[in-house]
Amino acid sequence: MKENIRADFTLPGESGYEQLTLDLARRWGADVIRDSDGTHLSPEILSAGYRVYSTICIIREHNAFAAAHPDAQQQTFLSSDPVIATSETLVIHPLDGYFTEQFELNDSPEALPYWQVWDRTANELLSRDEWTYSNGEVRIGHARPWHRYTVSFLCWRIWEEINMYNHTTNHWTSEHLRQLDPRHPEAWTYLCGWLRDWCVRNPDTDVVRLTSLFYNFVWIFGSDPRRRSRFVDWASYDFTVSPAALRAFEAEYGYALTAEDFIHMGKLQATHRPPTRHKLDYMDFIQRFVADRARQLVSIIHEYGKQAYVFYDDSWVGMEPYGKYFGTVGFDGLIKCVFSGFECRLCAGASVPVHELRFHPYLFPVGLGGLPTFMEGGHPEKDAMDYWLHVRRALARQCVDRIGLGGYLHLTQDFPAFVDTITEISDQFRSIKALHMAGAPAELPVTVGILTTWGSLRSWTLSGHFHETNTNVLIHVLEALSGLPVSVRFLSFEDLPRSLSGIQVLINAGAAGDAWSGGDAWKDPELSAAVTRFVHEGGSLIGFNEPSAVPGLDTNFALAHLFGIDLNTGDYACHLPWDLPVSNPPVSIPEDTLGHKTDLRVLSPDVEIWVSENGIPQMTRARFGKGQAIYLSGFHYSPQSARMLLDLIVLLTGVSPDTAGTADLSCVETAWYPASQTLLLMNNSDQAADTRVAWPAGHCTVHLAPFETCFLENPAPDA
Amino acid sequence: MKENIRADFTLPGESGYEQLTLDLARRWGADVIRDSDGTHLSPEILSAGYRVYSTICIIREHNAFAAAHPDAQQQTFLSSDPVIATSETLVIHPLDGYFTEQFELNDSPEALPYWQVWDRTANELLSRDEWTYSNGEVRIGHARPWHRYTVSFLCWRIWEEINMYNHTTNHWTSEHLRQLDPRHPEAWTYLCGWLRDWCVRNPDTDVVRLTSLFYNFVWIFGSDPRRRSRFVDWASYDFTVSPAALRAFEAEYGYALTAEDFIHMGKLQATHRPPTRHKLDYMDFIQRFVADRARQLVSIIHEYGKQAYVFYDDSWVGMEPYGKYFGTVGFDGLIKCVFSGFECRLCAGASVPVHELRFHPYLFPVGLGGLPTFMEGGHPEKDAMDYWLHVRRALARQCVDRIGLGGYLHLTQDFPAFVDTITEISDQFRSIKALHMAGAPAELPVTVGILTTWGSLRSWTLSGHFHETNTNVLIHVLEALSGLPVSVRFLSFEDLPRSLSGIQVLINAGAAGDAWSGGDAWKDPELSAAVTRFVHEGGSLIGFNEPSAVPGLDTNFALAHLFGIDLNTGDYACHLPWDLPVSNPPVSIPEDTLGHKTDLRVLSPDVEIWVSENGIPQMTRARFGKGQAIYLSGFHYSPQSARMLLDLIVLLTGVSPDTAGTADLSCVETAWYPASQTLLLMNNSDQAADTRVAWPAGHCTVHLAPFETCFLENPAPDA
Repeated sequence: MKENIRADFTLPGESGYEQLTLDLARRWGADVIRDSDGTHLSPEILSAGYRVYSTICIIREHNAFAAAHPDAQQQTFLSSDPVIATSETLVIHPLDGYFTEQFELNDSPEALPYWQVWDRTANELLSRDEWTYSNGEVRIGHARPWHRYTVSFLCWRIWEEINMYNHTTNHWTSEHLRQLDPRHPEAWTYLCGWLRDWCVRNPDTDVVRLTSLFYNFVWIFGSDPRRRSRFVDWASYDFTVSPAALRAFEAEYGYALTAEDFIHMGKLQATHRPPTRHKLDYMDFIQRFVADRARQLVSIIHEYGKQAYVFYDDSWVGMEPYGKYFGTVGFDGLIKCVFSGFECRLCAGASVPVHELRFHPYLFPVGLGGLPTFMEGGHPEKDAMDYWLHVRRALARQCVDRIGLGGYLHLTQDFPAFVDTITEISDQFRSIKALHMAGAPAELPVTVGILTTWGSLRSWTLSGHFHETNTNVLIHVLEALSGLPVSVRFLSFEDLPRSLSGIQVLINAGAAGDAWSGGDAWKDPELSAAVTRFVHEGGSLIGFNEPSAVPGLDTNFALAHLFGIDLNTGDYACHLPWDLPVSNPPVSIPEDTLGHKTDLRVLSPDVEIWVSENGIPQMTRARFGKGQAIYLSGFHYSPQSARMLLDLIVLLTGVSPDTAGTADLSCVETAWYPASQTLLLMNNSDQAADTRVAWPAGHCTVHLAPFETCFLENPAPDA
Repeated sequence: MKENIRADFTLPGESGYEQLTLDLARRWGADVIRDSDGTHLSPEILSAGYRVYSTICIIREHNAFAAAHPDAQQQTFLSSDPVIATSETLVIHPLDGYFTEQFELNDSPEALPYWQVWDRTANELLSRDEWTYSNGEVRIGHARPWHRYTVSFLCWRIWEEINMYNHTTNHWTSEHLRQLDPRHPEAWTYLCGWLRDWCVRNPDTDVVRLTSLFYNFVWIFGSDPRRRSRFVDWASYDFTVSPAALRAFEAEYGYALTAEDFIHMGKLQATHRPPTRHKLDYMDFIQRFVADRARQLVSIIHEYGKQAYVFYDDSWVGMEPYGKYFGTVGFDGLIKCVFSGFECRLCAGASVPVHELRFHPYLFPVGLGGLPTFMEGGHPEKDAMDYWLHVRRALARQCVDRIGLGGYLHLTQDFPAFVDTITEISDQFRSIKALHMAGAPAELPVTVGILTTWGSLRSWTLSGHFHETNTNVLIHVLEALSGLPVSVRFLSFEDLPRSLSGIQVLINAGAAGDAWSGGDAWKDPELSAAVTRFVHEGGSLIGFNEPSAVPGLDTNFALAHLFGIDLNTGDYACHLPWDLPVSNPPVSIPEDTLGHKTDLRVLSPDVEIWVSENGIPQMTRARFGKGQAIYLSGFHYSPQSARMLLDLIVLLTGVSPDTAGTADLSCVETAWYPASQTLLLMNNSDQAADTRVAWPAGHCTVHLAPFETCFLENPAPDA
């Protein structure tokens, strides 16, 4: 094993394990040592000649201040569960069913005017004189019997959610940490002062690693252990709210938001659902606030000669790296924890000087969902390799500057295979980075446009990690695209038709009514007309699951006339189906890739049915003008299905795949770096592979070990 | 085999097969001989001492008159298939894609004002000056490119649909029969005169069997053999339309119907979908017209000393036996062809002197879907037994006066097993009828209410036969109920809350947005409140598939708060599920009875989950107040699932099943006739069964042969 160069790797150090820290720093080629939540770095480590990252969660660990200023804590709107009136008098205890260690009613005079009581049966807001509140009880004097009522209310969040998670899941027993709202003037002054002090007290720190900023993603706990976690949305803004925020919003926008703008009939405003205009306004309002406050923090950090990196996770709300204001903050680096390829691309594409990935697994006894990692029964080296296979193919497409780990370093001691795996991975990472530094990989002359409600704001993500969003077809599509040799652009409906210029393949992927397929946005006829024109003039359209689904038109997909396929919501009752043959698909379709939809209808006999299940089409092609539209009932990511997507793109656009390098086995992916004259081969399979690879100069046959990353410099084509 | 009495059986006679006719009349115990479409009765048959039915399809077989008065033919609205504008000029040929042997444009000056042109992309009606028509072409001069357009137009129906079906399916080659519109004044005068002549020319006829009246169910053929049948709706009114009807409607109702009232964005107004207010008005208008014209025909028939029976099939539109005006016509009998138990109940419950069933199979070489019946490969005796098993259990519940067959009698000659089976069946029928005549069977003190949009108008039917509507869960429920010892009432939403009085078990069964679950009717909060009160006060609710589904509320089932189950249309994104155990169901649930829904959500931890599939509940119980609500994701009829439904009713109401007779095997059904002190046992299985049966006096054990119908007179209970 060759000695690693010391570069581009961030190692979590651990006080008390100085020798281990320095040994692993050498083996993994670290140039930076960091602390983690629960560890710190000893003087011996700090003085070993490495750059130092120090982690700060700015709004947390100020319990004394929070105790003295309880009104500086963060808040949220909640809705009570519905209660059915069985007589004219109805009493509701708003917090029933919520975790009272997380929430406390905000019934202050400033908050109560924002409370609402709803007759949900009639979908009617009660006027303020129809109910009274005292001592934690809402009382409706003249309820309509047999209607169900809810109370929307403000409450304090009295337990920082990540700390709460660690207590409830990992059995932590330390003091519950509270969190401060940076909008609270005294809290903000305090936090800025605290940061200055911190900078003074930590002279060895080169990089302040902010983790992340102010507002946690929305995580609402319940009182019943059978549903401890009631609601989780990694991109929702509900935890930013407060009477002060609502007043500031009203002053600026000239209209007031109400509880219902957040509660939304009890469903809340989940990121997977199309936002209201009010929500979009509020998001912009919060994004500017977060950027402004973040800018002040960064400026303090810079004053002390340190750099400010932001770790994009947990309390990141309002700080979207592809948002309008991210660039104005002045971060020196963005660190993203990654399980998947799309997360790698999310980080790599952000406009910031340094892009760093924090790999998984985290050095912690248990991992996701409580499964063992660094403890008996754990196989962290397998986990690391599994995540690496997802990330590697994305790294091959776009350069990332650094990688690293986090957690308790001592836990690696009993897992030498993990140490070896990370050694290999970090070496491969540096080799791939070196290729990028010499020149970008060849790409097919194809730009894929992903059309969603959110557009570029949610570039390369839906909201959380893959495993949190994997019931949405789009995340599978993004994961596939993250390693394909094509350009990808994220378009919102508002960007059309202008943004279709330069797009060869347009994708709309989602379920009816969600933010990804678009929902009511498709009521705009010019949207459908723009896509129709795009296809007629030669563009390619790919729809997944329920693309462009919208109620109120003559078809349930607004683009049904292009796909030749419509959703059958029951309204085709009595209309008989076309009796059409199933033709041989021109691409290889791996098993378990498509959905199993039962509610589709073929509209035209000219539709080519490639896959059918119980007489219902699952994958089809239709032509219109010079263009084509392909429909897939679903898409489940695998290396093989990613290859199928590439094959489809090649089929639709007629480009030559060899330009970017290609292998005949679908488990093998390639990248061709013309500047380095290097062919990168990645075996995604746990089996050895003999594959024929082609690149612009020719083709040859290569043997790859399981999972192998192979760098062919100046490959010689077969005669 | 005992000699059958001669009663209550209608035999299709056939000229040329006089001996066979009389022989089978004797064996099957016929007292009536009829003709059929394609056969006639010879003098020898007519004079053999039997009563005689003669079949008339009043609007058909007047081609000479139709040729002389082409404007007396029937019409319909159709919509062209959508055509996408690729430039500003767009030409549409309205009939493209339709079967031109069935349809001919009605571009007369009286019809053209009813034509419409729609921009379906923008969902906008074009004004009359935006398009021109000539020579079969609609031309839009300033179309919006990339929008799709349709033309709604009137057309003549130039081929009577049943005749068209026989030509295209059974290769008939005779002249295409046309059909007259009784609304056309000259046609009506002609038809009345023709009927008088007919009565004079057919002195031997005792009963004129009208088959049925004027307007066929809607059956639209296409030009492409890959979708010959485009649309079939057994209860739609589209074929009743004409400019004359539209003018009369407007004069009476004070507002005009337009093409779009029929075309409905190209989906037409299928019976399975909730009707518009306009459609309900139009249906009432047509029902009164049909009843009025039918009354005139019956009165002519009575004048000539004959009786008028109506055969409920094919051109029955507007003549619903449970409609407001059926009773005013004065029919002497209702004949219903039956495959199923619900059809038997439909006939038995209608308010008319004589109820007669025409059994299947029809004596024809091919049967449903073109499968062999009375030809090589056919097993008509098995078909007959299969239908009999469905009908027998319904006959046991409610008295029917007569049974019979139809078709070409000579075809039975090669099928002696069929002759034996009918002998058995007709004998059993008469025995069951005799029990009813002595006194009704015991019934549990339970009234089941079926809550749908259509209410009593569609009592015991959705529209067509079982096999035409079997993707709707309600028809399975009705088939099950048709043989259960409970009262059944059909309630429309407009009947609530008044009609809930006296109901113990309320059923709502259908798919989201259909006429059976109710769709937008549930937007009325008082509907949900009425059912909520009903359950709280002790009523039982059973929901199937997507009961009370409606958009726009905080739950997707308006009754989700009662079921504790909601439909998840995606709007529960980020809301986590309850982690609840599956409990043992208190009733036995046969395999393949429930649905396989993937989009359900449990709302409360108090819901008992009886059946779950991949973590999604398929059958549950929730309690509210003194009542209960049971949810089933689907329901597939079988004798066993019918028993499950009975068990559920017993469980919910607490009644004692023995009151009405019960067997311990789910394949055996019972009926207890107190007046005759007779226990009727029906083995629904092809296996012999030893079962313990209980009735009010006690219980005993009985051995039943496969399919046996067993009459236990004065049964002796075991000690």
